[in-house]
Amino acid sequence: MAEVVHMIDSEVFLAFSTYATIVILKMMLMSLVTSYYRLTKQVFANMEDTTLVKTTEDRKKLVRIDPDVERVRRCHQNDLENIVPFVVIGLLYSLTGPDLSSALLHFRVFVGSRFIHTVTYVMALPQPSRGLSFGVGLLATMSMAYRVLTTVFFL
Amino acid sequence: MAEVVHMIDSEVFLAFSTYATIVILKMMLMSLVTSYYRLTKQVFANMEDTTLVKTTEDRKKLVRIDPDVERVRRCHQNDLENIVPFVVIGLLYSLTGPDLSSALLHFRVFVGSRFIHTVTYVMALPQPSRGLSFGVGLLATMSMAYRVLTTVFFL
Amino acid sequence: MAEVVHMIDSEVFLAFSTYATIVILKMMLMSLVTSYYRLTKQVFANMEDTTLVKTTEDRKKLVRIDPDVERVRRCHQNDLENIVPFVVIGLLYSLTGPDLSSALLHFRVFVGSRFIHTVTYVMALPQPSRGLSFGVGLLATMSMAYRVLTTVFFL
Repeated sequence: MAEVVHMIDSEVFLAFSTYATIVILKMMLMSLVTSYYRLTKQVFANMEDTTLVKTTEDRKKLVRIDPDVERVRRCHQNDLENIVPFVVIGLLYSLTGPDLSSALLHFRVFVGSRFIHTVTYVMALPQPSRGLSFGVGLLATMSMAYRVLTTVFFL
Repeated sequence: MAEVVHMIDSEVFLAFSTYATIVILKMMLMSLVTSYYRLTKQVFANMEDTTLVKTTEDRKKLVRIDPDVERVRRCHQNDLENIVPFVVIGLLYSLTGPDLSSALLHFRVFVGSRFIHTVTYVMALPQPSRGLSFGVGLLATMSMAYRVLTTVFFL
Repeated sequence: MAEVVHMIDSEVFLAFSTYATIVILKMMLMSLVTSYYRLTKQVFANMEDTTLVKTTEDRKKLVRIDPDVERVRRCHQNDLENIVPFVVIGLLYSLTGPDLSSALLHFRVFVGSRFIHTVTYVMALPQPSRGLSFGVGLLATMSMAYRVLTTVFFL
């Protein structure tokens, strides 16, 4: 990394940048999965989108709700609700100068839990698999938030 | 905070880190409130989740929409739509070197407005209480955005 | 920008701050567009909100779904799903010390694509206009993510 970043080119910050980018890319992938399902199952949210597929059906009937599409969308929404807090708190946490090993543990547990969460959600695996992966990710973020608050506290 | 952060260990940045973490934790709490309502009211979005509760009812009937759960979810969504902009613009604003007193005013007004917003939303208090708390938070973020744009402008 | 930011007052970082703020403000505008539609079309998500308008209708009937409001909300949601990744990855990308011209290209293409996306969505322009603007923004973010991963990679 170039001169600009001398102060934040610690290994912790490099690790944060890597894990944050990977988990954000995973979240962005959900958009493409949704599009794939919409196109292959011919299920759309907007009338104008129905022209994207060839069909003999009445196009108005393609603007509908489909359980598989809704499942992927809920998974995407859950990503937004959890990955955004991880990125914000993980960035601040990285700036508090934690041990590299502690930081890696937090990042790996969080990112791993979100990949497992996606698999359990999209494949509709039996609970509590999804609940646990959600909870583990939440705890990783909260543990980092605890360190941020105890280190920087200034109200 | 450790050596890594010498350049951003100003009091403004410490204050931003504290308020950002608090308001993100508040947002994360909405996930838990939603889960609590789903489990106690036995209202689920996925068939596989119905196994998380004991019931004599037909499990298919537990996959349904409930007005209280939807209310909490709308509140959570409104948090996402407003707290994410605050965090991004607040971070950039903190780097523009504002007075500590101005910065604290912005952070406190925003975070306070979001706590009030949550209470007014979840308890369904009469309008315009929720509208005002939403508007005050929006103005705090826009005021910071104005300073960022007038300070760093580079198109 | 003040002393605090000596290390990140590169032109790339100034440009990132400007474009990120503009595109976040655009996203926040969607909240106001939604409110405007809800008030003028008298379509609400909460019973308590119906008191914000004068009406002779039964207030319960104003709590309903409207296709135009839902369209704006889907556009807002798509912003959240795409602008948040841009901001996170764009910030990390800016810290990798890219050429100013490459950085400006990425920022301008992304922000431009999102303004076009909003126009195509709200006005329901024929596809593939919206699909293309979505895809171009996605590619801009992915291209920055590629640079971040190849520069900082530390798993």
